[in-house]
Amino acid sequence: MIESPYELDVDTALVARGDGRFAVHVTDRWNIGAAPNGGYLGVITTRAIAAVLPQPDPFSVTSHYLAVARPGPAEVVTEVVRLGKGHSTAEARLVQGGREIVRTLAVFGDLGTLEGPTDVRCRLPPLPAPEDCEEGRPAPSLPVIAERLDVFMPKGAASWMSGIRSEVPELGVWIRLRDGRAPDPISLVFFADAFPPPVLNLGAVQTPWVPTLEMTVHVRARPAPGLLRAWFRTRALMHGYLEEDGEIWDSTGTLVAMSRQLARVHRG
Amino acid sequence: MIESPYELDVDTALVARGDGRFAVHVTDRWNIGAAPNGGYLGVITTRAIAAVLPQPDPFSVTSHYLAVARPGPAEVVTEVVRLGKGHSTAEARLVQGGREIVRTLAVFGDLGTLEGPTDVRCRLPPLPAPEDCEEGRPAPSLPVIAERLDVFMPKGAASWMSGIRSEVPELGVWIRLRDGRAPDPISLVFFADAFPPPVLNLGAVQTPWVPTLEMTVHVRARPAPGLLRAWFRTRALMHGYLEEDGEIWDSTGTLVAMSRQLARVHRG
Repeated sequence: MIESPYELDVDTALVARGDGRFAVHVTDRWNIGAAPNGGYLGVITTRAIAAVLPQPDPFSVTSHYLAVARPGPAEVVTEVVRLGKGHSTAEARLVQGGREIVRTLAVFGDLGTLEGPTDVRCRLPPLPAPEDCEEGRPAPSLPVIAERLDVFMPKGAASWMSGIRSEVPELGVWIRLRDGRAPDPISLVFFADAFPPPVLNLGAVQTPWVPTLEMTVHVRARPAPGLLRAWFRTRALMHGYLEEDGEIWDSTGTLVAMSRQLARVHRG
Repeated sequence: MIESPYELDVDTALVARGDGRFAVHVTDRWNIGAAPNGGYLGVITTRAIAAVLPQPDPFSVTSHYLAVARPGPAEVVTEVVRLGKGHSTAEARLVQGGREIVRTLAVFGDLGTLEGPTDVRCRLPPLPAPEDCEEGRPAPSLPVIAERLDVFMPKGAASWMSGIRSEVPELGVWIRLRDGRAPDPISLVFFADAFPPPVLNLGAVQTPWVPTLEMTVHVRARPAPGLLRAWFRTRALMHGYLEEDGEIWDSTGTLVAMSRQLARVHRG
């Protein structure tokens, strides 16, 4: 087996312990503040599920975030729920120090063999070309995870970072992993949670901390190499809880993932 | 304990067997063809989760549909994943004859105690008043589940039933349980899957059978009594797989649930 040299692969590498259990080292390279990013943790659990199922591609991946992870050793415990010819289902739990951090339930299939009608009504995100966007450069004000990413946003899209609220809870971006790793289906679980929440564009939101309770990613196609473009928006902030929907498209203009999370504007 | 006289409650009644296990009788009153409706089964697993958690309301409920259920006896096996002050998480498996039929993973909270900012950008479904809609009356061509529901749709909304495809994969409806049971948070898991799939408005879809692989419902508020209004749409049918998004509003015009499912246009 050839080890991938890329950061996302190295930092989610699993060591099989038998009986569907894996050891993993959660690194601090995907941190937001002191905590590893939820999408990064979701790649760990989704890779563990991939390791115990016959089909290669995640079709729907739901992760519940139960406790804050810390960089350091962890265990992933998997359970095969159903093995099928077309789809299979499994679950993975990320555990640290006896405490369950993330539980992921996913159905896998093979995106390379699908046959059936196609009719896509979503529109490609209306983004300016990357060279006409602002590049999000790592800075002391940005979390560590920003060092892993090339991000290009329309000018002013994340203006809340400089104190200006647009009152439009939407965010469009171009993105790729900075070390050149091409996107693949499992990495879309990461990309779907790699962005600052567009709900921060609302002045009513007084905290930058918007923890995810549950996130579901539908992977719809294998992404082509190159920049992904994504659009995230929140349509219903209700009593501090919000959904955030995302669409991710590849460099050829194919819709590759749809995501939705339930999150909470943290009080205090 | 006073037993509810209403069909949805009677037909999802759980008998505790200890150790988080429950007996249930799956009835044929919510059938589509020979199979009980997935939303009905989701109410069974969600009620079992409610029975083992301290908080009353489902916040996010994900169900994976693993095998076709049959009317008859079944068991629900629950596992408490995390108990918390604000939210708790649990899982339930519906099992028939040793075979797992549905697995549900849900986080619960208390919709009655939420505090925080509100900003809703979704629009109330643009439906004519119920009296200006067509009433879906039970008929030999309709599944048994239709006998449980009062449904009012704009004229022509489900025209595929008479062979006319609108090519607009959207569907708006007014709905309530016919026996007068008021909607509550757990019943929204049912309502989110109680409608014919709007993807059938596309001529490219040659089968009426659109089985759900995974469905997630976010319950956002406790519904007021009265008619619910809902809007469902599919924006991405890709190689026979589709997402279907739903929004459900109560009689006071409050958004009470958002749903998304991954389903498949059955071949053959």
